[in-house]
Amino acid sequence: MPQSLNKNAVLLLSGGLDSTTVLAIAQDAGYSVHALSFRYGQRHSFELECATRIAKAARVAQHVILDLDLSQFGGSALTSDIAVPKDRNAQEMQGSIPVTYVPARNTVFLSCALGWAETLGTGDIFIGVNALDYSGYPDCRPEYIAAFETLANLATKGGVEGTAPVRIHTPLIHMSKAEIIAKGTQLQVDYGLTISCYDPDVTGAACGHCDACQLRLKGFHEAGLVDPMRYQEGS
Amino acid sequence: MPQSLNKNAVLLLSGGLDSTTVLAIAQDAGYSVHALSFRYGQRHSFELECATRIAKAARVAQHVILDLDLSQFGGSALTSDIAVPKDRNAQEMQGSIPVTYVPARNTVFLSCALGWAETLGTGDIFIGVNALDYSGYPDCRPEYIAAFETLANLATKGGVEGTAPVRIHTPLIHMSKAEIIAKGTQLQVDYGLTISCYDPDVTGAACGHCDACQLRLKGFHEAGLVDPMRYQEGS
Repeated sequence: MPQSLNKNAVLLLSGGLDSTTVLAIAQDAGYSVHALSFRYGQRHSFELECATRIAKAARVAQHVILDLDLSQFGGSALTSDIAVPKDRNAQEMQGSIPVTYVPARNTVFLSCALGWAETLGTGDIFIGVNALDYSGYPDCRPEYIAAFETLANLATKGGVEGTAPVRIHTPLIHMSKAEIIAKGTQLQVDYGLTISCYDPDVTGAACGHCDACQLRLKGFHEAGLVDPMRYQEGS
Repeated sequence: MPQSLNKNAVLLLSGGLDSTTVLAIAQDAGYSVHALSFRYGQRHSFELECATRIAKAARVAQHVILDLDLSQFGGSALTSDIAVPKDRNAQEMQGSIPVTYVPARNTVFLSCALGWAETLGTGDIFIGVNALDYSGYPDCRPEYIAAFETLANLATKGGVEGTAPVRIHTPLIHMSKAEIIAKGTQLQVDYGLTISCYDPDVTGAACGHCDACQLRLKGFHEAGLVDPMRYQEGS
């Protein structure tokens, strides 16, 4: 029986492939998962619908969707009118920070998760960041996560007093997309419930050409599995 | 002429005495101030009304009020139904973290400020934290601020690429309340526009007995000035 049975943890749940895999990993380790999603001015609400279905299917302890309209600041393709780049190769993805980067998004999300964790009396926070197939975001790197953990232990009552030391769990950080998919499949994750696309059509079907779709398709291909996500016809 | 003339900065503006003083300091240093306030589930909205009037009076470049309902997490007197403590002495205030502590509040607020700063192309962020008269909050200490600055420079495009290194300005951090009030008065801050009380009455008049009122009254007394904030009769 896992040592951490029934210990509370907060999980950032986007409705995508990575965070859904982390949910399965956290539950498999015995954590009682409190899932946190954000309505932050993203282009489409499909990922929140997915997050809700995923949370329900996994029977999480609680699922909160926080409203936080980052689009008031502008500055990103995911929350404004800049076009989502399509059909970029691996070199283009890695070479620079893409316009789909949302300023300080993971910092904002982790901070809110930290607040919730503190009220739950826990320091355990799970996030599905990935340093390999990370599409060039600075706030997905191990040194960033380590700095957040240091900050969090200075920021909170539980961290300062030692009653709930903060630990940012990033089980996917050194895994390839194919390894993530293999791990999730082993834990019986239903990837048909997830969405990764930055630019789905009005029915929620994925475009198949944005960075997120390309990384996902490549991952399923390398894992020798078929992606159950619904793609646009002819994509 | 100040070197930083017309340089953008983001300022966290609560509508209280400290952040209003920092606003005057930032403008005096030549910054074009973008003020950020939060509707985060606080007990009363008077401080947002004050923040709006203060931002207008100071002619800031922009004032954004972000909705972020931290009360969904519970856990603090400022956002839930736990009673605000009254008439505590200095030892009681310093001895432990009070129930008015909002979990991870400054971390959440600084993270949002960081997001806005990044879209503005600046790394300059001002916050009115104070390590002397700080009422026992862990996220007001210099080591916390230093850790946030380290994190922020790993989190953002401007920090990573060096185009907009993040600097968290805390001009009040080592000042007493009396020194803050003296500095603000010198910069012609109208403290009659501010509110500090955790528990005002329905008209917005301050209680005079919560930690914030007591620290404020002591500060004005020590500065040899009269507090123009409106207090409840007989308080």
